[in-house]
Amino acid sequence: MTQPPLRIGAVGLGRLGRFHAETLAHRLPQTTLAAICSVEGSDLQWARETFPGTPGFSSFDAMLENAGMDAVALSSPSPLHCPQIIQALRAGLHVFSEKPLGTTVESCQEVVEESARHPRSVLMIGFMRRFDPSYIDVKQRMAAGEIGRPILFRSYSVDPASAIDGALAYLPHSAGQFLDMAVHDIDLARWLLQSEPATITAAGGCYAHPEFADYGDGDNVAAFLQFQNEAMGFLFAGRTAAHGYQVETEIIGTTGSLRIGAVPQRNLVEILDGDGVRRLCSQSFLERFEKAYVDELAAFAQCIRDERPPEVTAVDGLRATEIALAAHRAFQEKRMITLGTS
Amino acid sequence: MTQPPLRIGAVGLGRLGRFHAETLAHRLPQTTLAAICSVEGSDLQWARETFPGTPGFSSFDAMLENAGMDAVALSSPSPLHCPQIIQALRAGLHVFSEKPLGTTVESCQEVVEESARHPRSVLMIGFMRRFDPSYIDVKQRMAAGEIGRPILFRSYSVDPASAIDGALAYLPHSAGQFLDMAVHDIDLARWLLQSEPATITAAGGCYAHPEFADYGDGDNVAAFLQFQNEAMGFLFAGRTAAHGYQVETEIIGTTGSLRIGAVPQRNLVEILDGDGVRRLCSQSFLERFEKAYVDELAAFAQCIRDERPPEVTAVDGLRATEIALAAHRAFQEKRMITLGTS
Amino acid sequence: MTQPPLRIGAVGLGRLGRFHAETLAHRLPQTTLAAICSVEGSDLQWARETFPGTPGFSSFDAMLENAGMDAVALSSPSPLHCPQIIQALRAGLHVFSEKPLGTTVESCQEVVEESARHPRSVLMIGFMRRFDPSYIDVKQRMAAGEIGRPILFRSYSVDPASAIDGALAYLPHSAGQFLDMAVHDIDLARWLLQSEPATITAAGGCYAHPEFADYGDGDNVAAFLQFQNEAMGFLFAGRTAAHGYQVETEIIGTTGSLRIGAVPQRNLVEILDGDGVRRLCSQSFLERFEKAYVDELAAFAQCIRDERPPEVTAVDGLRATEIALAAHRAFQEKRMITLGTS
Amino acid sequence: MTQPPLRIGAVGLGRLGRFHAETLAHRLPQTTLAAICSVEGSDLQWARETFPGTPGFSSFDAMLENAGMDAVALSSPSPLHCPQIIQALRAGLHVFSEKPLGTTVESCQEVVEESARHPRSVLMIGFMRRFDPSYIDVKQRMAAGEIGRPILFRSYSVDPASAIDGALAYLPHSAGQFLDMAVHDIDLARWLLQSEPATITAAGGCYAHPEFADYGDGDNVAAFLQFQNEAMGFLFAGRTAAHGYQVETEIIGTTGSLRIGAVPQRNLVEILDGDGVRRLCSQSFLERFEKAYVDELAAFAQCIRDERPPEVTAVDGLRATEIALAAHRAFQEKRMITLGTS
Repeated sequence: MTQPPLRIGAVGLGRLGRFHAETLAHRLPQTTLAAICSVEGSDLQWARETFPGTPGFSSFDAMLENAGMDAVALSSPSPLHCPQIIQALRAGLHVFSEKPLGTTVESCQEVVEESARHPRSVLMIGFMRRFDPSYIDVKQRMAAGEIGRPILFRSYSVDPASAIDGALAYLPHSAGQFLDMAVHDIDLARWLLQSEPATITAAGGCYAHPEFADYGDGDNVAAFLQFQNEAMGFLFAGRTAAHGYQVETEIIGTTGSLRIGAVPQRNLVEILDGDGVRRLCSQSFLERFEKAYVDELAAFAQCIRDERPPEVTAVDGLRATEIALAAHRAFQEKRMITLGTS
Repeated sequence: MTQPPLRIGAVGLGRLGRFHAETLAHRLPQTTLAAICSVEGSDLQWARETFPGTPGFSSFDAMLENAGMDAVALSSPSPLHCPQIIQALRAGLHVFSEKPLGTTVESCQEVVEESARHPRSVLMIGFMRRFDPSYIDVKQRMAAGEIGRPILFRSYSVDPASAIDGALAYLPHSAGQFLDMAVHDIDLARWLLQSEPATITAAGGCYAHPEFADYGDGDNVAAFLQFQNEAMGFLFAGRTAAHGYQVETEIIGTTGSLRIGAVPQRNLVEILDGDGVRRLCSQSFLERFEKAYVDELAAFAQCIRDERPPEVTAVDGLRATEIALAAHRAFQEKRMITLGTS
Repeated sequence: MTQPPLRIGAVGLGRLGRFHAETLAHRLPQTTLAAICSVEGSDLQWARETFPGTPGFSSFDAMLENAGMDAVALSSPSPLHCPQIIQALRAGLHVFSEKPLGTTVESCQEVVEESARHPRSVLMIGFMRRFDPSYIDVKQRMAAGEIGRPILFRSYSVDPASAIDGALAYLPHSAGQFLDMAVHDIDLARWLLQSEPATITAAGGCYAHPEFADYGDGDNVAAFLQFQNEAMGFLFAGRTAAHGYQVETEIIGTTGSLRIGAVPQRNLVEILDGDGVRRLCSQSFLERFEKAYVDELAAFAQCIRDERPPEVTAVDGLRATEIALAAHRAFQEKRMITLGTS
Repeated sequence: MTQPPLRIGAVGLGRLGRFHAETLAHRLPQTTLAAICSVEGSDLQWARETFPGTPGFSSFDAMLENAGMDAVALSSPSPLHCPQIIQALRAGLHVFSEKPLGTTVESCQEVVEESARHPRSVLMIGFMRRFDPSYIDVKQRMAAGEIGRPILFRSYSVDPASAIDGALAYLPHSAGQFLDMAVHDIDLARWLLQSEPATITAAGGCYAHPEFADYGDGDNVAAFLQFQNEAMGFLFAGRTAAHGYQVETEIIGTTGSLRIGAVPQRNLVEILDGDGVRRLCSQSFLERFEKAYVDELAAFAQCIRDERPPEVTAVDGLRATEIALAAHRAFQEKRMITLGTS
C-alpha cells in the first residue's frame, strides 16, 4: 500500500525558498506542499497564485499551529534558522533548514542540544553539494581509496559580478563571506577529508567594492587550513567573477587527484568564433545545483520515511559555522587561529 | 482553478518505456499515468509493483477501450508505432510516439494522412534531443545568426561497446543503423539547417561484428549529405565505442562554429592519475538525455493543454524515416542517391 | 670526426620558404644555407640582408650550376616543383620539396620515374604533419594496436577568415582546395590507415566567397572516402574559420579513438571573463607546426647522412596528388569516383 | 657585418646542464659552446663525445683562466652558484646562472653587491618560465589591464611520483621544497603581481615519504601569502603526482581570470577508450619548458650584444630566495611570518 505524501511546509520565499516550495509541491511524488510562510506580502501573493489551495501564513507560529504538517523546510533569513528549528522540533516536526545552521556558535549549539532531545525528529541541514552527482562521484572515489591519502583540499565559491547588488544589500545582515559562501566548502572539506581543521589563517580585501570593509569583510577572501589528519585546505570566496557562478573543488591525494567544476560550463556547447574556443558558464547556484536541491529534499523525505538520521546533521551545521566564524576572525585579526579539538 | 492532470497511458515497458511511465506518474504534475500496456508478463508485473492501482493491459485494444485516457505515449517496438498511432488517433486520443515514426515510408505516410484527419489531436514524435538544453542553446544561436550561413553539419550517435549484445539481439528486427541510431541526427540536421537533403552517399562495414552483414548492415556506418541549401552533412553511427555513449554534433558556419558534446562527459569530475587527466563518459541515452526525455513529455502535455501543434510533427517523423532509409539504401548499393524535392 | 654541414640551397622565399631558409641557416647545426633562389627582387633583397654572404640567384639554372650545393629545398610555386625536382636530381642533388609534389598526376609520375633513376639521391616531400609530436604519438599508438581496427579517419584543414585575401589572390593558380589544403589530410590518412582510398564523393560550395566558383571550386569543401581496408574517411577543407587555423584529426577504431587538435589552442592559457571560459587559437600553419617544419628538414638531412630513403617519398607525393585531384573531380562532377587499385 | 658568436662556457652537466650546453652549441646561431666544466668524469666523457673539439675542465678556476670565454652558464649545484658567479664576474665575464641564485640570503646579497660593481657584465638568473609563450601571453594581458586588479595568484609546481628517487637522493643537499621548487612560482608571483609579499604562512607534511621529515621538510608543502598590494598568493609544491609534471598558475582579477597549464597536457592528442576521454601529461621540466630554456639563453645572449640589463636580475634571485626561505621557516615554525618591506 502506498503511503500518503509527507505534508511539508515551506518557510521563506526568496529565490531558493520558492524553488524548494515548487519541489515539495511538484517535483517529488513523496511530498506535498502543506503550507507556505513568509512575512512578505508579495511572496504570499506569488504563493497563492502558484499553489492555489495551499494555505499561506505570515506568522511561523500560526503555521505551526494550524497547518497540520509532518515537517518544515526553512529558507528563512539565516539568523532565524536556529529559533525556528527549535520551535519546530518542539512542535514535533521534522525539519529541513537551509545553510548556515546559524550565525553564532551558541545558537547552533542550542539546536544541537534541542535536537538530541528529539531523537525521532529528522533534522537535516541544506548542504546540497553532498547531493550533486559530481561530488557524490568524488566522495565514492575517495572512499574507495582511488587517490590515496589526501594532501590538499582546495575549493572556490564564486558569485558572478552581476549578482553584486544583492550581496551589497545583504551586507548589514551578513556574518561574513566565510559564513555566507565558504560554509559550503567547509562542509565539503569535512565530509571529504573526514577530519576537522586544526589551524586557520585568512586574508583578502576589498578589491572592487570598498563597502565590504565597512562591515569588517572583504569582497574576496581566502583561508588556509591544516586539518588534524595533516591535509591542507585552501578556500576562496569571491563576489566579482566576470565569467559566472563557479564552484570548483580539487582534492590532491598521494596517488591521484580529483577536480570538480574546473570549468563551470553551463551546458555541453562549445563556441568557436572570433573570441577563440569557449564555453559559457553557469550564472547562479540554481542553474548549477538544480538537481542537488531536489535530491536533498528527496533524501530528507526518505529519512523521515525510513526513520533514520539524515546525511547532514545539526553537528555538521554547528561545525561549519564554527569554522567559518574562525576564518572570519582570522581574516579580521590577521593571525593564525588554532581550533579546539572537538 | 487548476485543471486535473492529463490521463496518459504508457505503451511498451522497455528501458525507455519504463522511464516514460515513471515520468507520467511522478515527474510531471500535469500528467498522471492512467494505464500501462505491455505484452510481456514481467513488464506488467513490474508495473503492478511500481504503480499500484494503475490498471495494466496486455492488449492495446483493451487499453484503448477501457482506460479512459486523454493520450497515449508509445514506446512499443518500432514497427508497431504507425498502426498504434492510427488506432489511437481514431479513438480520439492525443499521441506521443517514440522514434522512429515508422520503419517504412508508406506506414509513415499513412500516419501523416490520418493525422491530418484529426487536427485537434496532438501527435508528437520523440526526437528528444530538441529538448536538450545544449541543443536548444545551439538552435537559438543559429536562429540569431551567430554562426552565419551553415556550411557543415556533423553528428555522431555512438553506443558503448558494452551495449553490443542488445544491438545484436535486435538485428532481426532492425531496419538498419541509420534508422535505429542516425535518425536522431537526421532530425537534428533538418531542424537546425531548416533544409532537406538533396543527395546522400553512405559507407561503413562490419569492423568488429560480422553479424551485422547478415542483415545487410554494418556495425559502424556513415553518410555524407548535401542539403538543398548547399550545407553539407556528415553522419556517423557506431556500436563499438570503448569510452561510452556519445552524441556529438558540430555545425560549422561562415562566421562561427558550434559543438555539442565533443567530450561526452558524465559529470563535472576530472581525474588526474597514472592514466593522465581524464573525464569519465556517459554510458547510456538515459544518462545523457534524462532531462530531455522529461521535458519532451512536459511539452507534449502543454501542447494538449494549449490546443496547439507539437514541436515535432508526423511530417518530421516521415522525413527522418525517408532519409534514414535512403541512407541505408545508399550504403547497401554503394552509390549516391538523389532525394526527391518535397 | 664531425662532418661539415650539408650545403643546401633554398628555392622560393614566400612565408614558408623564408622559414625553411632560416632553418637551414640557423636552426640546424647539420645544415648550412648554401644559396638562395627567387624570381622576386624583394625576396632577394630580404635574403641579402638576412643572410649576408649567402649568394642569391634569380635563376634556378644558375643556382644549380654555381652554388656548390649538396641539396635543394624547394618552396617555389606548386607547378614548378616537378620540373625543378627533375632538374635537381639530374644535377646530382638531394631534393626536399614542399607539398604538393605536383599539380598534375603526369608530372608527379615523371618525378617518380626520374627519382628511380637516382637511387642514391634523397627526394623527400614536405608533409610536415608526419613530424609533429602529436601526430607521431598517434602513429605510434595505432601501430601498437591501441585503437584496434580503424573505422573512421576524419581530418579538417581550416584557414582563418583573416587569410582569405591570400587565398582569393591565389585562385588563378590553384588546382583546388583539395590539392591546396586537404592534400595534407590525404597524406595523413594514407600514412595512418596504411591503405589507399577506393571511392570518393565530394561536395561543398561558395558559402561566403562566390569568387571560388569562377574557378570551379568552393570556399569550403568536403570529401567522403572509403579505403581498401574498409575504413571510412571524411575530409573537410575550409577558408572561413572565425576562430583561427585549425588542423584537427580523429581516428575512430574498434577499441578506442584518438583525436588531435580538437581545440586548436595557441598556448596553455585559459581566459575566464565575460565571454565565458575560452582559449585563443593558432592563427597560421607556422604557429601550429613550427617544430614539425624544423624537424622535417632535420630528418631530410639525416637521411642524406645515413644514405637511406626518406620518410615521405615521391610515391607518397604522387598518390596524394592523385587522390586530391580525384576529390576535386568528384566535387565538380557531383558523383562518386572509383580510384584504380594501384 | 655579422658578429662572431659569443663564446660561452657551460658549467655543470646534469640533465639541464647538458641541455644548456647543447643549446649553446647548436640551437643558437649567436652562441658557441666555448668550454665545458664538470667535476664528474662521466660528464666530461659525455661532453667529449658530444662536442668534439670543445675543451673540458674539471676545475672552474682552470676554465676561467684558459677557455677564452665571453660568458659562463652555470648549472652547477645550487650552493656553488653564488661563489662561481662572483668569481666569473671578477674575471670580467657575463654570467647566466640557474635558479636558485643561492641557498642563503647572505650569499645572494653578496652577489647583488658584486654585480653592482660590474655594471657592464650581464648577470641573469634562470627563471625560464618568464620566457614560456603562455606566461608571456599572461604577462601581456595583465599589463594591458585585461583582468583588472589582481586578487589571487595561485601556482603549483608538482613533480611526477616517478621522479621521487632523485628528490630523495638530493634531500641532504636541499634547502627545502620552497627553494627547490616553489622558487619559480615565487618569481612568477613577483613578476606578474609587481608586488612583494608582506606575510607568509605555510603548511604541509610527509604524506607519502617520511624521509623528508628527517630534513625538516615535507614531500608536499604549501604557502599562503598576502602581498603589499593586497593580492593573495597560494603556492603548492609536491613530489608525488601520479599524472606527471605539472606547473599550473591561476591569477584571479577583478574583471577576469587567467589560467596557465590547468591540464598539463603533453601534446594535442586526446585518447577515448575504456578509461574515458583523457590527455597524457608532461613528465618533466624539459618536456614542458624546452622552448623557454632555449629562449632564455637567446635573451641572455641578446642582452650581452645590446649591452643592456637582463630580464631577470640578481635582485630577483635574491628576493625569490628570501621569500622561499621565509616560507620554509613558516612551515617549520608553524607560524605566520612577516617579511620586511624592502
